[in-house]
Formats: sequence, C-alpha cells, structure tokens
Amino acid sequence: MKVVIIGGVATGPKVAARLRRLRPDADITIIEQGELISYGACGLPLYLGNLVPDMMELMMTSSGSVRDPEFFYNTKQVKVLNNTRAEAINREQKTVLIRNLLHNQQDILPYDYLVLATGASPTVPTLPGKDLSNVFTLHHPTDAQAIRELVRSKKLNHLTIIGAGLIGMEAADALFGPRIKITLCEAQAQILPKFLDTDMALLVEHEVREKGVEVLLSCQVLGLTAGDSGAVARVETTNGLIETDAVILAIGMRPTVELARTAGLALGVTGAIKVNSHLQTEDLSIYAGGDCVENYDLISGQPVYSPLASTANKHGRVIADNIAGRNSEFPGVNKTSVMQCFEHNIGRTGLGEEEAIQNGLDVSSVIVSGYDATHYHPMHDKVRVKLIAEKSKGRVVGAQVVGLGEGIKRLDVLVTAMKYGATLEDIANLDLGYAPPFSTAIDLVAHSANALRNKMDGLIRSVSSSDLLNALAKNEKVYILDIRTDEEVKSTPIPYENKIEIPLSELDQRWQELPTGGRLITVCELGIRGYEAACLLQGKGVSDVSYLEGGLSILGAYT
Amino acid sequence: MKVVIIGGVATGPKVAARLRRLRPDADITIIEQGELISYGACGLPLYLGNLVPDMMELMMTSSGSVRDPEFFYNTKQVKVLNNTRAEAINREQKTVLIRNLLHNQQDILPYDYLVLATGASPTVPTLPGKDLSNVFTLHHPTDAQAIRELVRSKKLNHLTIIGAGLIGMEAADALFGPRIKITLCEAQAQILPKFLDTDMALLVEHEVREKGVEVLLSCQVLGLTAGDSGAVARVETTNGLIETDAVILAIGMRPTVELARTAGLALGVTGAIKVNSHLQTEDLSIYAGGDCVENYDLISGQPVYSPLASTANKHGRVIADNIAGRNSEFPGVNKTSVMQCFEHNIGRTGLGEEEAIQNGLDVSSVIVSGYDATHYHPMHDKVRVKLIAEKSKGRVVGAQVVGLGEGIKRLDVLVTAMKYGATLEDIANLDLGYAPPFSTAIDLVAHSANALRNKMDGLIRSVSSSDLLNALAKNEKVYILDIRTDEEVKSTPIPYENKIEIPLSELDQRWQELPTGGRLITVCELGIRGYEAACLLQGKGVSDVSYLEGGLSILGAYT
Repeated sequence: MKVVIIGGVATGPKVAARLRRLRPDADITIIEQGELISYGACGLPLYLGNLVPDMMELMMTSSGSVRDPEFFYNTKQVKVLNNTRAEAINREQKTVLIRNLLHNQQDILPYDYLVLATGASPTVPTLPGKDLSNVFTLHHPTDAQAIRELVRSKKLNHLTIIGAGLIGMEAADALFGPRIKITLCEAQAQILPKFLDTDMALLVEHEVREKGVEVLLSCQVLGLTAGDSGAVARVETTNGLIETDAVILAIGMRPTVELARTAGLALGVTGAIKVNSHLQTEDLSIYAGGDCVENYDLISGQPVYSPLASTANKHGRVIADNIAGRNSEFPGVNKTSVMQCFEHNIGRTGLGEEEAIQNGLDVSSVIVSGYDATHYHPMHDKVRVKLIAEKSKGRVVGAQVVGLGEGIKRLDVLVTAMKYGATLEDIANLDLGYAPPFSTAIDLVAHSANALRNKMDGLIRSVSSSDLLNALAKNEKVYILDIRTDEEVKSTPIPYENKIEIPLSELDQRWQELPTGGRLITVCELGIRGYEAACLLQGKGVSDVSYLEGGLSILGAYT
Repeated sequence: MKVVIIGGVATGPKVAARLRRLRPDADITIIEQGELISYGACGLPLYLGNLVPDMMELMMTSSGSVRDPEFFYNTKQVKVLNNTRAEAINREQKTVLIRNLLHNQQDILPYDYLVLATGASPTVPTLPGKDLSNVFTLHHPTDAQAIRELVRSKKLNHLTIIGAGLIGMEAADALFGPRIKITLCEAQAQILPKFLDTDMALLVEHEVREKGVEVLLSCQVLGLTAGDSGAVARVETTNGLIETDAVILAIGMRPTVELARTAGLALGVTGAIKVNSHLQTEDLSIYAGGDCVENYDLISGQPVYSPLASTANKHGRVIADNIAGRNSEFPGVNKTSVMQCFEHNIGRTGLGEEEAIQNGLDVSSVIVSGYDATHYHPMHDKVRVKLIAEKSKGRVVGAQVVGLGEGIKRLDVLVTAMKYGATLEDIANLDLGYAPPFSTAIDLVAHSANALRNKMDGLIRSVSSSDLLNALAKNEKVYILDIRTDEEVKSTPIPYENKIEIPLSELDQRWQELPTGGRLITVCELGIRGYEAACLLQGKGVSDVSYLEGGLSILGAYT
C-alpha cells in the first residue's frame, strides 16, 4: 500500500506514525515544501518571548530527539521528502507531481491513498508597503527567528501589531517589555474579536492597557511606508499615523487549498477543503485533515473553519485508521480555543452570545467571578466565567473564561459537558474534584451554572457591567447600593454618584433608608453577596432591584 | 414556614442561605452542637501545615466576614443556636427537643420541615490507650489547634499516624518536616486503600518514602501505652513497637446517624441515612444531606457512602429548592476524590479496577505517563493516569491520577465524560483546550484513552510494571529491550539483567540481534516510544513482544 502525505507539520506526521503502527508493510512518504518538519508551531510565541530559548526545542521530541527526515525514517520507516513541493495531483492515474526545490527536479509519485495536510497560511492583506523589510507574519519558525534577531539588534523600540486576534495578542505578550513599546491595531471594535464576546474581551483589554500596551480599536490600516533605511517606519491608519520600527501582520489564517482546488476537489462554504466524517474528500482515496479542512461544529451543526494543532492530531489518527481499514469518524469540534497572555488564562468554547442568536437560538447568559481554589489557600486567583445557555432547555451552548486563575480547567469541563448537550442543572451537579488547592466547595463551573439558572428562573434580576454603564451614561435613575464591608468600601471606593453604602450585615435593619422610585443595583466584589442582598430586598418588597453580575471585579475593567 | 436544620457546618448553612433567597418569609433555625459554624473543615490540614496561619481564615467568607451566628442572622436572617444539641425528634408532633449545652436548658422547636445535616465523625477504634493524651483525631478545628500547639511546644519529634487514607496522608504531608519524624501505620497492604488502586498507590508510596516518611503496611495497631508523663509514648503493632510522641487516629469517617435512627428513620446498607433523589428520608417532611447520608453511585448504580464538602453543598441547594417547592433532584456521585500531598496531585473517580470487577464488569485498564503541558514549555510536569473501561463498549468506568503536574483537570474532564457514559473514542475526540502552557497537542486524557483503545483492540500487547516485576521475580524468560537514546541509558540505566540496549532509531536495522524464544518487553521513559518499538517489532514478525505501560516513570516507583 502506497500512501503519500502532503504536508509535514502536524496532521501529516501523525498520519504517518499511526499508520506505520497499524500497517508495518505500508509504503509511506511525506512531502514537505519547507526544510523543517513536525515542529511545534504553537510554541513560536514562547520562543519569541524567550520562554523557549532555543528554536531546536520546538523541533525535538520530549526525549530530546530532533524530528528530522532521518529521525522519521529511522524510527518509523517513513520517507520524508522535505524542500519538496507537491505541484499537481492526477486523480485518474493516482499520482502526485512533485518538485525538489533545492535541485529543481520534478518527479511523479504514485499513491493508493493520498492525504492532504497542507495546513494554513497567514492572511496577508493587499496593503501598500506590506513587502517592506521589518514587516513580518508569525507563522513559520523563520518568521520568529527574524523577529527575534531584530529584537536582539536593539533596533526595535516600537512594534506595531496589526490584528488583535490570538496570534497578535500572543505576539504582543511575548515581545512587550521595558525596551519595546507596542501598539495593537484592530479593525474591529474589540480585541480578540472572533475569540471572545465583547464583554469578556473588555476584561482582557483592560489588563493589556494596564500593562502599557497601546490598543487602537476600529482602526483600519491604510498603508505602510518606509523610512530612510528602507525598512517600514510608519503605519497609516484611520486613527492617525504610527511611527514604528517593525510591523507584525496578524490578520488571521486561511487554509492552503490551491492543490486541492486545482485537483477539482470541492471546498466548503468556509473556503477550506470539504471532508466527510471519515475525513475523505469527494475523491474517496484522498483524505484531508488539519488546518486545510472545514470542520463540523458540534453545537451549531454548521460547517466552520477552526484550525488547531490538537484537532490536526486527532484528524491524523482518524485518517490513518481509515486508511488501515479501521472504520473511524471524527465527530466535530466545539471551536475550543485557549491562550495565555499577559499572565491571564483565556479561553472559549461553543458559540458566542451573538453567534448563538445568529444561529436562531434563544439564549441567556451570565458572567460570574470567583476563585479557582478556596480563598484561604495561599494559591488562589480570580477567574471570570461567561456561560451562555438556551432559555428553553437550559442547554449550555457557549462558555468563555478570563483570569489569572485556572480557568482552562473549567473550560475543559464545559467542553466535555457540551459535547453531551448538558444542561445547567447537569453542570451544577457534576461530581468534580474538590479539595482546597483545586477548587472552592462549589466549583466555579457549578457556581456559574447556578447563577444562570437563577437568572433564567426569574428568581432575581441581574445587570451586566455594560448595561449598568449604559444606564448611567443615559442618566437613567439608577441607584448603586454598595453592600461591601466598611473596610472594602474604604480601600476601593466606587467611582460613581448615586451610590448608597449599606453593608450587607446591616441591610436587614436599614433597608428602609433606601430611596424609592428608581432602579436599585446591588454591588459587591464578586457578585455573590450582591445577589444575596438583591434577594433580601426583593423579599422586603423592594420592586426594581437587580444585582451586578460578577460585581466590581468585572465593572473595574470597564472603567 | 418553619424550617429547622440540625447541623451548622456545610449542608446546613447552605440550605439556610439558599432557602432564605427563595423564601424571604421562612422562619429558619440552625441547631449546631459546637461553638463554630460553617467552617472550612477541608482546610484543617492547611492550618496544620501552616499554609493557613490563622484558624480564623477558615471561619471567614472570601470577603473577610466571620461566619458566626451574628453574621448569619444579620446577612441572612437565619437564627443559629450554637452550643446546642438536638436530642430527639418527635415526628408525629413535628418537633425537635434541643438542649443548650452551656446552660443545660432544654427547649422544643416545632418544624414544618426538618433538615438533618448531622455530618460525620472520625471512626475511633476500640483500642487500648486511645484516650491517652497526645492521641488525636483530625476532624474539628479544636483537634487541629491541639496538634499545632504540640508542634509549637517542640515536644513532637516522632508522630505516628494510624491510617494512611486521605486524612492520614494529608496530616503526614502537613506535619512532616526536618524536626518531625513520621510513621504511617496502615492495616491494608497499600496506602490510600479506598482511594487508589494498588498500582497507583505504589506511585504515591514511592514519593512518600523518598521524602523520608516511614510507611508500615499490613500493620495492625494493637494498643497505645503511656510514658512517664502520662501521654502516649508507644504504639504496639503487629510489625513491632513504635516509640512516639503523639498519635493521630485517621481510620476513617462514619456518618452521624443516632438522631435519625432513634427517630425511626431508615438507614441504608452503608449505615448512612437513606434518602430518595429529592434527599427526603422516609418521612417526607424530613430531609437529610451531606456527610450523614448515603449517595447513589452513578457508575455502579449502587448505594455508596462518599462524604465530601462539595456534595454537601450540592445537597444543600437541592434540599432548599425542594422545601421551597421547586422540584429538584440530586443525581448521584462518581465518588470523585482529590488531594494534594507531598507536592503531588492525586485523584480518583468512578470505580477502581477491583471494584469494577466486583461489580460484575468486564474491564481493561491502562496506566500512561505524560506531561500536563508541552515539553518545551518551562512549566511542565508529569502526570500518571490510570483509565479503566468496559471491554465490550469501551465505556469508561474509572480513572485515577497521580503526579506533580495538573492531573486534577484531566480527572474533572473524565468525571464529566463519565456522567454521560462516555466511551474511550468519545474521550479521544473531545475538543479540549490546547495551547502549550495548558496541555500537549494530544491531551493526556486523549492519550490515555487512545492507549487503552489500542490495548483493547489487540493492536499491541502491554505489561504493567507490577506484571513485569512479577515475571522477573518468578525467573520467567523475559528480555527487557531498552530503546531509549544512549544519553538516556547512560544517565539512568535500568537495574535489571536480561536487558538489551538498542535505541529506537537503530531498531529497524538491528532488530535481528534480538534473542528469540522469550518474552520481549520494550521499555522507554513514558511508554510512548516503547509502544512504537513494539509495533515495529510486531511488524517484523517478532511474536511475543509487549511494551511497558507508562515506561520507567512508573517502574521506577516500584523499585
């Protein structure tokens, strides 16, 4: 059995390794147009930020072997042709035309099964000046090496990053420091636009600005122009001119599909290669996986483009199993995505709130704040969780986390629950591990599910930070009832008028002091006591009372 | 509506707080026989180990308020009668006879609904000398304070802990240090007997012994005897006499059910109070929750006794909802339990392997080793995962983790998946969050599921560390093929005879050097390359080849 795999980074090597184990007799060849194979591309920001000092570490296995063609041949008997481009597929004859890029020699490889693992490449806008020197993308190890060389030269004092998506943010985090000023230009009105909902993105934006990064939103880049040295020196934007020493273009990724398209294979609505659940293209002897294919969204049931190394590896296994005659299907993705930036753990899964509405779902959402461990444990930190669920059944359809604390664990639990259509009640009752170093007695996941249940049950009204600020901006008659302790109020007073300070412990006695004829919003640090206070007042017959979701720990980021 | 709650630690206060929010008009009273209410009992080992310097922190909310009766009344309008014991329940008249322990006054409280949240207490064996001074249990804050006082007096040089279950191990971890020698006496043949399977417990035992803790297994304690001071000075055991300065009895917990029993309420087979899914006792106006009740095991479908603070809180919510007329059910537990000790994160959920077999399930299991983050990320650590699944359907029925790395996150994912009857294939394809700081591209959960699938598919044979050692002990004809790199072999050679060293990269060329006519077991650090090597050899027609599960990272702990 001859198997040709086009692409040697993630899916390709995984197909090869798994297939070798299943079929010791198979003749397996990987075609890779670059020099390097099987590198840890996700580690490039770590290399940029000096957390991985040597690029070679990204090329090595955990036991210290370099994953080069020789390693692949010796350990897996897989032939790797690097510096070789696949130029055309002849589906009738089942051959691939390849060209060695060093010797410029063509060759023809026959296949029984072909695997397209051609990956993705950074979107480069048709921008004047995009080819100037010191204008980078961040996709390939050579990109990262060039950027780091510029950093080492100490000629990089001001870096402009175009695009505040995942890669742009990771680059900002990696390169930010006392010697390098960073400006982030984002065309959308929020950072991490496809990643987080606006309310959650604001929490991150707040932290990033606090660190000293300049963030320009709704900012269209018009062009790049050179300085005296010929390198980029200025970025023209709708928000004005930026003087800069370098530019990273981080607009997004698009699937590499030219080979598939010219071979007449169908692409999906997202522009990526269309595959069935066995990861076959329309030509059943051609499989495709990884960043070049379209995935099925488990929550919306829609096709999505969601390139990720973890998915690429799963694809590799499924493809190898199918080629080896072991029937295997890939179920689809939740569009889970996680990142660490500016010390914050950030993640999302499922649908965003707007996206859910666009998918025709009637949803409600809540943002809660809490700790990842008991507050008396020396290692505990805050996590903000946004949960989105269908009003009718309480089925959770999306979740997002932001915080210094261990939020990704909570996200992974929600990913798993959502795979099975879990309701809020299911999640509240999960028997998750509890001990003081690992969670609070009511885990944050359960707490967020309970908060949303309470909201959806109409038990108590709540307002989000943005709703509160909108109401204040419109001069609505809103009273903020600060129910924190005197010490808390003194140390971090709330910067608004129309506030009333009554500690929760005195509220039962003093509630009649409250003004009437306006909205009353109870406020505390995390939203938990605010909820309690609102319940108390509702019980007293106070009519228009809500609590501030997530408390000041959210509101603080909005101001 | 009059609601009387007996027990003021976890379930009781939770019922009260939730019910207050739902029913502002309810008359709610908590009866607590101790002085303290609503304290973080799970934090006692942290207090012992000085990670929580002040016991008050365990009594406070995260915003710094002390949870005393006054706090409860002021913030929740819940009356708390502490230092008060509930002595009898009159179910016909719906009253509780109570006694104030300070003034020795009796009183009678009428109720519409009664909640039993009487908790559990440490099992104290009928052991000669158990009442000597410096013999402690570790359950109540006063226990922890007394132990800490002894530590401060510097008269504690040798501590004997009887029982190496969760509490015994936590106590050992908290108190171990250069000045205090610790001996753990465990009646069973392994530490953490109800918590971990023997193979996983051995991994922990190895670490604990490495730290210098003395571990005596299959060790029956016969009696305690006093020294000159009258305090305990010797522990007589089947393994000999231990000179000691203090003893902690950590045999286990049993539910406090006397009140329920004398009221004629049924207990379950486990000896805890029997409740339905609404957490009602046979008397539908009496609810019970927390450490005093029996739970339903979601995996086995059997009643179990599994006391945990997290479950107690969930119970509290369900009980309050039902009393308030909101129909609510508690689904049951996975028997999840987690702990941190000697820097290791340790956890279990579902059934143990033996337990699964006793439940009539035909299961297979695997132990794998891996990292919690990419190996090139500066913060990565090892986790060992044991996964147990039904052979027929691949349904996962149990999981255990041990390691310095973030294993509890993986456990929580498995808890969630098991709630829905997930198969190994489901778990391998979960769209969990991947980025280098949070996991490997193939998350350890997926890796363990894949390893067990391979084993169950008969793709390749494997042996566990204990099987290998048994075979060596019996002088079976076993060849160990060490396929690590020369550097690895040089730095940590394998301490067995009958070993052959051929690096994986040379195996394809040199496999014919291997001896024939015996079992061949391939060995590497984590088990991943060993698996690859075994596949390679199987492909060459080598007949009796297996790989060592989890590699030397497991075997090392057995030796």
